[in-house]
Amino acid sequence: MAPKLLYPTSLAIDAGLLEGFGVSLHSYDVKEPIPDNLLDAEILITWTNPVPRLKEEAKRLTKLRWIQSLAAGPNDVLSAGFDSSKITICTGSGLHDHTVAEHTLALLLNAARRFYEMRDHQLEGKWPGHLGGPQPDRPKGKFTSLQGANILVWGFGNIAKTLTPWLTALGANVTGLARSAGVRNGVEVYGEDKLQELLPKTDALVMILPGSDATKHVLNTERLKLLPEHAWVVNVGRGSSIDEAALAEALDKGSIGGAALDVFETEPLPSDSRFWKTPNTIVSPHAAGGRPQNPEALIAYNLRKFLAGQELKNII
Amino acid sequence: MAPKLLYPTSLAIDAGLLEGFGVSLHSYDVKEPIPDNLLDAEILITWTNPVPRLKEEAKRLTKLRWIQSLAAGPNDVLSAGFDSSKITICTGSGLHDHTVAEHTLALLLNAARRFYEMRDHQLEGKWPGHLGGPQPDRPKGKFTSLQGANILVWGFGNIAKTLTPWLTALGANVTGLARSAGVRNGVEVYGEDKLQELLPKTDALVMILPGSDATKHVLNTERLKLLPEHAWVVNVGRGSSIDEAALAEALDKGSIGGAALDVFETEPLPSDSRFWKTPNTIVSPHAAGGRPQNPEALIAYNLRKFLAGQELKNII
Repeated sequence: MAPKLLYPTSLAIDAGLLEGFGVSLHSYDVKEPIPDNLLDAEILITWTNPVPRLKEEAKRLTKLRWIQSLAAGPNDVLSAGFDSSKITICTGSGLHDHTVAEHTLALLLNAARRFYEMRDHQLEGKWPGHLGGPQPDRPKGKFTSLQGANILVWGFGNIAKTLTPWLTALGANVTGLARSAGVRNGVEVYGEDKLQELLPKTDALVMILPGSDATKHVLNTERLKLLPEHAWVVNVGRGSSIDEAALAEALDKGSIGGAALDVFETEPLPSDSRFWKTPNTIVSPHAAGGRPQNPEALIAYNLRKFLAGQELKNII
Repeated sequence: MAPKLLYPTSLAIDAGLLEGFGVSLHSYDVKEPIPDNLLDAEILITWTNPVPRLKEEAKRLTKLRWIQSLAAGPNDVLSAGFDSSKITICTGSGLHDHTVAEHTLALLLNAARRFYEMRDHQLEGKWPGHLGGPQPDRPKGKFTSLQGANILVWGFGNIAKTLTPWLTALGANVTGLARSAGVRNGVEVYGEDKLQELLPKTDALVMILPGSDATKHVLNTERLKLLPEHAWVVNVGRGSSIDEAALAEALDKGSIGGAALDVFETEPLPSDSRFWKTPNTIVSPHAAGGRPQNPEALIAYNLRKFLAGQELKNII
């Protein structure tokens, strides 16, 4: 009997692109129990599955051999209790590169061009004349343009690789920071031992780190102090990589230029979070990604590998 | 005697880069009368000169042969009453390409990613969950990303040529519109006779038109009606190119997606303007340019041409 592949109806998947592999394709509703006749499935594709339901399915799907999540960081799958000794779990890394990179570019431009401040004036019917008209071109000690700005990208995976050519085209000087050093896509990527040297020269720090014990609070009080007073922090990775109390403190004191945050330690951002009120803060509601692009290509690729008994892509 | 060149102190000009031409270089304060000993100047560089003062100088600078404005559209110089039969007037076209293009990109991304709406929520301490989390990728009939979006750039000079490679890198389909058709920098530029065909297919219309009788209210009720309901209008040219009453009406009715405006018919935007309150409107305070970049290169180039008796660049 052909192995069963279950794909979710929580996003539009063109199942036609998955035909011809000798597996039988079945759609399922992530919010409902998987029907009894599908419980012998070997392959499960996940997207926005509620964790309580996933925990139930972890017990019911006893023949499962491969889970393909479409999320970049599938914490839901990892916490559901699937037997990782029997089941290969793959992330959707790569499906969100373009969308997250676009949002990151937008956050950087909002920081440099201060659209949040313009909006505040607009809501009061006031012309923010101090932000327009004749002005000095990229004065020293301010972050007013990507042109000539030193952008440090911390976490140099596929999102960074998509983003950095755009930043370079806009005239920015891009430097990378990652666990392993080297030149990637023409960008010099340094090891984290160079942080002390790099942070003081940074106009905008872009964080694209995954959530893990190793990345928890890596941006802390001590490191924030190394940033120039005009420097912005942009985070599109995971909220846990920043010590939020330390960042809020820096914003309130004005010891950094601002923060454009798409991710937070707790989401939705709690009503008592300081970030609602800290100055020069852009609160974006985890909006950078969340819309996997061309998932069929990743599923089909991994399906070939799976059926051939070869190593899959994006294994956790 | 060496011809005198007067350059303004209203921006930082490195006069050292203008040496060696056999002209004598003199700085002047745009807000003060030009000193008597400089009234025989043949060359005047202008930047943010107050119009009343320019009108006075038009009578006093009787030997003037060339005015080099650093503004893209030097309406101040044109309205000051200089004798254009004797004086060559040149614009600062080209000095603002990068800065205006960057701001335009930022406006487009703000439109697509709705940061103004996020800001409104932030100010009320509310998480705009509807703008984040899992969402459809580029649903039909919405402008949510530059990727795959049809961007129509109306007015295809140097700013457009700087902007369009960035838009293309971000995945947009860029089409141009100008008085003369043809392929420019790899972008298909149509004549204005194609407006009726192009507007209905447009996700974002970017206007970069100069102010003139020919461009007055070229975006009017009739043409706004040709845009799809989700389409955005971005204006970084001159406010006069849009019939503002017609645009405000379209925004209020929701017959277009929104408008991101850096220029207005009257600036500062009057307190009774409808744009303070129309939905999906981004009011930017003529902030795109206003900071000439590398003016010395343009001045030096035209100085060579001037001294050689050849035709200058950017003659009005």
